[in-house]
Amino acid sequence: MSKVAVYGAGSWGSALAVLLSKAGHQVSLIGRKADEMAQMSKLRENVRYLPGVVLPSGLTPTTDVTELNADLVILSVPSHNIREAAQFIKPNLRPGGIVVNTAKGLEEETHNRLSEVLKQELTEQAIAVLSGPSHAEEVGRDIPTTVVVASDVEIAEKVQDLMMTPKFRVYTNPDVIGVELGGALKNVIALCTGIAEGLGFGDNTKAALMTRGLAEIARLGVAMGGHPLTFAGLSGVGDLIVTCTSQHSRNRRAGVALGQGKPLDTVLHDVGMVVEGVRNTRVAYQLSLEKNISMPITQQAYKVLFEGADPKIAVTDLMMRGKKHELEEVVEMSWFK
Amino acid sequence: MSKVAVYGAGSWGSALAVLLSKAGHQVSLIGRKADEMAQMSKLRENVRYLPGVVLPSGLTPTTDVTELNADLVILSVPSHNIREAAQFIKPNLRPGGIVVNTAKGLEEETHNRLSEVLKQELTEQAIAVLSGPSHAEEVGRDIPTTVVVASDVEIAEKVQDLMMTPKFRVYTNPDVIGVELGGALKNVIALCTGIAEGLGFGDNTKAALMTRGLAEIARLGVAMGGHPLTFAGLSGVGDLIVTCTSQHSRNRRAGVALGQGKPLDTVLHDVGMVVEGVRNTRVAYQLSLEKNISMPITQQAYKVLFEGADPKIAVTDLMMRGKKHELEEVVEMSWFK
Repeated sequence: MSKVAVYGAGSWGSALAVLLSKAGHQVSLIGRKADEMAQMSKLRENVRYLPGVVLPSGLTPTTDVTELNADLVILSVPSHNIREAAQFIKPNLRPGGIVVNTAKGLEEETHNRLSEVLKQELTEQAIAVLSGPSHAEEVGRDIPTTVVVASDVEIAEKVQDLMMTPKFRVYTNPDVIGVELGGALKNVIALCTGIAEGLGFGDNTKAALMTRGLAEIARLGVAMGGHPLTFAGLSGVGDLIVTCTSQHSRNRRAGVALGQGKPLDTVLHDVGMVVEGVRNTRVAYQLSLEKNISMPITQQAYKVLFEGADPKIAVTDLMMRGKKHELEEVVEMSWFK
Repeated sequence: MSKVAVYGAGSWGSALAVLLSKAGHQVSLIGRKADEMAQMSKLRENVRYLPGVVLPSGLTPTTDVTELNADLVILSVPSHNIREAAQFIKPNLRPGGIVVNTAKGLEEETHNRLSEVLKQELTEQAIAVLSGPSHAEEVGRDIPTTVVVASDVEIAEKVQDLMMTPKFRVYTNPDVIGVELGGALKNVIALCTGIAEGLGFGDNTKAALMTRGLAEIARLGVAMGGHPLTFAGLSGVGDLIVTCTSQHSRNRRAGVALGQGKPLDTVLHDVGMVVEGVRNTRVAYQLSLEKNISMPITQQAYKVLFEGADPKIAVTDLMMRGKKHELEEVVEMSWFK
């Protein structure tokens, strides 16, 4: 049994706290709102973010940040709050402990990966990232789920040991860059498949966007130091599948509305929340220019979102590009000789 | 304008004939049943297999096999009829012409890939294969679709030139082995995701099976000479997505019934047709033994289908396997040093 703290009591933080508690650890679920945490303690349920899931007796909802002095700290806050959260929790973390980030994205101002942000802020802890196809509500209901933990091998294996259960299978991968980029860029493609759906296109078009979207994410990812096959794994194609086919994805829903011809500000107002894919598209587009990587789908998404391009014309532009080899720019053609 | 013949007037053959006709070629759609082909000619529609799609005037439905004397012949027959079909069409093919196979599978008796079968039978023609996420009814309705053609580069590019339209984007790939194996083995995974659905599991489980299923298909594929990244492409993950998420897939539906606890013979009787995934699972399992490749999902599918194993226990067995590295057996770990 280890001492674990989960910082951030949204749906994913709560689901992971339940999981870790069932795995036999002593778990503190730390939120900032005293009334919500008190209610959670009393009702043994996170009524707002993870309704219907009983919090096991080994799980303590609290606002007490001294509980962050733990073997393992799971960080579950929105991606744009990562730096601030790191600064806030830092004084209470145990030196030599492990911090696992579950947020997905890139810091908008710096284009840093989130583990880079954490390494800058938390110099006394080992940093790992958790990713993969994992709806919180399904993990809360003990639905079989697989995820990947990326870090130095030794750290990743420690996290794997702590988190793996018969319903939650944890793979390790030393390719932190690849794992983070897959999670950070998938929402661009989810937005695009939504747009295709809104335009009345079918499964062929969506599968095309997902596959070729993955190819361009991998191209960028490889240029940034990731391994091409990581993008074919749980944090790449696995997470992409769940995001692009989920009825719950805000990115997909925003895309559908855009495809139906609604303007971006109306869409964002209607969805009523931050749509990560919009933010991610801007960052991905900037990175593609910076690194000089061909990302035609991202480029068209950028035009539709920020330059008022007609989505129908964007799709035609994609279909009418020059003739291509499927593995171009990723595989040395000499491989086939 | 080229002279094109499509042999096999099912839904995919008909959709491709319509496409090639719209691309400006002179197209014969060749079927064996005189009454059906006559009706098609009269109604300008394949009422049975591609209802609602008008056959363009440049498309001629016929039973006349001398029309096989064409620049390009598309072969669109069920995978278990390939050898017989090749022998049947051989005398009328043009020496030096191109034959493109669209069936997916492996010959059951020999474990040959279908292009190997064709090369054995058709020694005077160049052989190519067409694969990727492409429901026939969507191609018939001009929904944007992407596919991949695999062959020697020169041949693949010729086929690309002949088939590409603003609605049908053709990529080339010299990796014939990888392209064929992705198509041949995807149905095993479609069956498995169906089983997971039938057991009441969620999107996390399905995405896990698809991603890890792809990983084991790639492992086998690489051992057989394919390129790992081909499996992340249109004929791999692209086709897998369409097959595993489609409401129309017989393999998926058969899996759902199995997951609900129905015995295999009842399921096959209810679905009322050949379920390719059942056949494919046996071949994939045999190949995994032959090549000594770890394919845990295929192995469990085999146990459920042919040894009466309980699907629920099969899933538990998968979740409880030893702890793994995500890229194991595919990537040299030294890559990360």
